[in-house]
Amino acid sequence: MGTGSSGSAAKASRAAPPRVELLRVGHRPGRDPRLSTHLALVARAFGARRMYLHPPDPRVEASLAGVRARWGGEFEVVPAPSWTSVVRDAQGPVVHLTMYGVPLARVLPRLRRPRDVLLVVGGAKVPPRLYGDATFNVSVGSQPHSEVAAVAVVLRELLGLPGARAFPGARQRIVPSARGKSVVPDRRTVP
Amino acid sequence: MGTGSSGSAAKASRAAPPRVELLRVGHRPGRDPRLSTHLALVARAFGARRMYLHPPDPRVEASLAGVRARWGGEFEVVPAPSWTSVVRDAQGPVVHLTMYGVPLARVLPRLRRPRDVLLVVGGAKVPPRLYGDATFNVSVGSQPHSEVAAVAVVLRELLGLPGARAFPGARQRIVPSARGKSVVPDRRTVP
Repeated sequence: MGTGSSGSAAKASRAAPPRVELLRVGHRPGRDPRLSTHLALVARAFGARRMYLHPPDPRVEASLAGVRARWGGEFEVVPAPSWTSVVRDAQGPVVHLTMYGVPLARVLPRLRRPRDVLLVVGGAKVPPRLYGDATFNVSVGSQPHSEVAAVAVVLRELLGLPGARAFPGARQRIVPSARGKSVVPDRRTVP
Repeated sequence: MGTGSSGSAAKASRAAPPRVELLRVGHRPGRDPRLSTHLALVARAFGARRMYLHPPDPRVEASLAGVRARWGGEFEVVPAPSWTSVVRDAQGPVVHLTMYGVPLARVLPRLRRPRDVLLVVGGAKVPPRLYGDATFNVSVGSQPHSEVAAVAVVLRELLGLPGARAFPGARQRIVPSARGKSVVPDRRTVP
């Protein structure tokens, strides 16, 4: 898709940013709905297309459907009864985010050219075969931290900082403020 | 502090990265220990000095003390019975991260020069006066997502991507691997 700007030849030849999807494996419906919801919200806000959730959890799906109704965009949580088939069907590199992997900076150049990238994050228990099935096992710092942070930083590197743009179809949007809160109806959604 | 490298004059005149601290307000001990622990882990892994926690929660403090014992470094969770005094005592700009604020990219240039930066994130309920007491109210995308992601991205912008470096005093460290897990005793800690 064109950007509408009169870019130079150098800019025009540059690859478009990849289409990024996220797969969350090892979700525990009893314990993890908040963390998996944070993961999905981050994926959405930072420009990913969808999050596959294994095992499926209607609570997380419903929560993101509500956000989408209010705040717009096409993002959705897709139930994934089989995570292996999501990995097998991936159209580009499969990037497993793990504190044990190779540093992100080393892998980044190889993630900027493909048209599709699938990020994968595990929960408390990561299936051992994921380390073998992934194209890359990548760490964002070789320290324990948070899958939410890892996804945010990788998306920021691949797609840039999320701006103040509202998502198409939003019922409301935020007007950035130096002080306080400003939320207005999104008139652009009126046909 | 010097870096030990023979930098050019241009490099030498560049400001050192700020010392960053994090304040988490509105923590709910019954509901939020996991999210606040993720916040603290991210702050530590991405190079912040400490996290003030309001109201205090010994569970989060103990969890991070355990991580520090195993993985090293000086990071700690500091109980903050009064969040206003942490803000009042800040030695540099107070940066409140909120989806309602001005875009991060606009404020970043003003965060690179100070010697100290205090990041503040709210929980479910943000005290209204925080919007007034903060030097800047800053958004990482004007969309709902996660305070964990916001902190990670701001620290990445200010301090760079976290590398594979172990922290001083670690009992163990990760050797980055293309496949699988490699954790070894950190012999560098032997005196």
